[in-house]
Amino acid sequence: MTTDLFGEIAIHPGRRIAGRLVDVLATPSPDTFETAPVARLALGFEGVPGDRHAGFIRPAGGREPWYARGTEIRSGRQLSIVSVEDLAEVAAAMGLTEVAPAWIGANIVIRDVPRLSFLPAGTRLFFDGGAVVVVEGQNAPCRFAGAAIARRTGAASAELGFRAVARRLRGVVASVERPGAIEAGGAVAVKIPEQWIY
Amino acid sequence: MTTDLFGEIAIHPGRRIAGRLVDVLATPSPDTFETAPVARLALGFEGVPGDRHAGFIRPAGGREPWYARGTEIRSGRQLSIVSVEDLAEVAAAMGLTEVAPAWIGANIVIRDVPRLSFLPAGTRLFFDGGAVVVVEGQNAPCRFAGAAIARRTGAASAELGFRAVARRLRGVVASVERPGAIEAGGAVAVKIPEQWIY
Repeated sequence: MTTDLFGEIAIHPGRRIAGRLVDVLATPSPDTFETAPVARLALGFEGVPGDRHAGFIRPAGGREPWYARGTEIRSGRQLSIVSVEDLAEVAAAMGLTEVAPAWIGANIVIRDVPRLSFLPAGTRLFFDGGAVVVVEGQNAPCRFAGAAIARRTGAASAELGFRAVARRLRGVVASVERPGAIEAGGAVAVKIPEQWIY
Repeated sequence: MTTDLFGEIAIHPGRRIAGRLVDVLATPSPDTFETAPVARLALGFEGVPGDRHAGFIRPAGGREPWYARGTEIRSGRQLSIVSVEDLAEVAAAMGLTEVAPAWIGANIVIRDVPRLSFLPAGTRLFFDGGAVVVVEGQNAPCRFAGAAIARRTGAASAELGFRAVARRLRGVVASVERPGAIEAGGAVAVKIPEQWIY
């Protein structure tokens, strides 16, 4: 990989990775935290219509301590994307057979993209059929996810354990750049943008 | 600056920089490319109401060669942010006394933030009064800006020259995360996110 220099800043060029779309999921209603597999995910500009995280605007929460809780802010959290490999690492660290993407509210499950949770902001995922989503940032484990794992596995320690173990392995959040329907089993072209350290 | 490691990935921690808001500008109508200074910029979730680049959705153009021109996509280009220092460097390289932010359609002019054009995606700018915008990416020089400079300065070579010279010095594009009104002369707290090279 060649690196350009601009003054003292080293610019790492963009590149592409090929992944697979393993599963697509949505919340059965906006009140549910866990998701359930669906035949297809119809992505609109607002995310997954009817899903808990659909919408352009959301109330600020614990992840944004610089806002008063409940402040209306732009939502960059329409979609939760996780990888088979990262969740397997989480499960192993917790002594569990699996951590199912549905338990932690994932919408899109991908494999073959190494360290998916580190895909930088601005990464584009191109799906079969034309839908494109843009990574907004690393997702942070929340207590809802830990509680769901505890409930599903009977491992009471999971409620707090998940938060510590899943840090940097819990996938990314993303917005829809170009709407379209996506189905499990297809290809995903992952376009990493140029990067540098500011 | 300490750097954490996650496996082989070096994580550079987030940090804050203090800048100054020098000027705020908007297009007089959606048909104009050049902006003009305004007393205050009332930022809504859609950007600057009535400005050329306001809106959640925009047609794809030459910057997104992976879409057919005109395809409706999410807009991450509501705001153009430039720095006094970067534009002084552009002007010097072009042999001009100045490149005015208005000529190239800037909305927000900042000083005291080194290499502003390299603020990474996910950087938040907190303005006096509560408005917050999020950097979406580096802006790329376009022919409109070069043409405007040529018209304003009489330097015919500027039309093409700007594109080459202003690469990586043309500022960033941003979205509004929290609406609010901003006025020239205030402070800007720049919050750089964690970074790593994927």
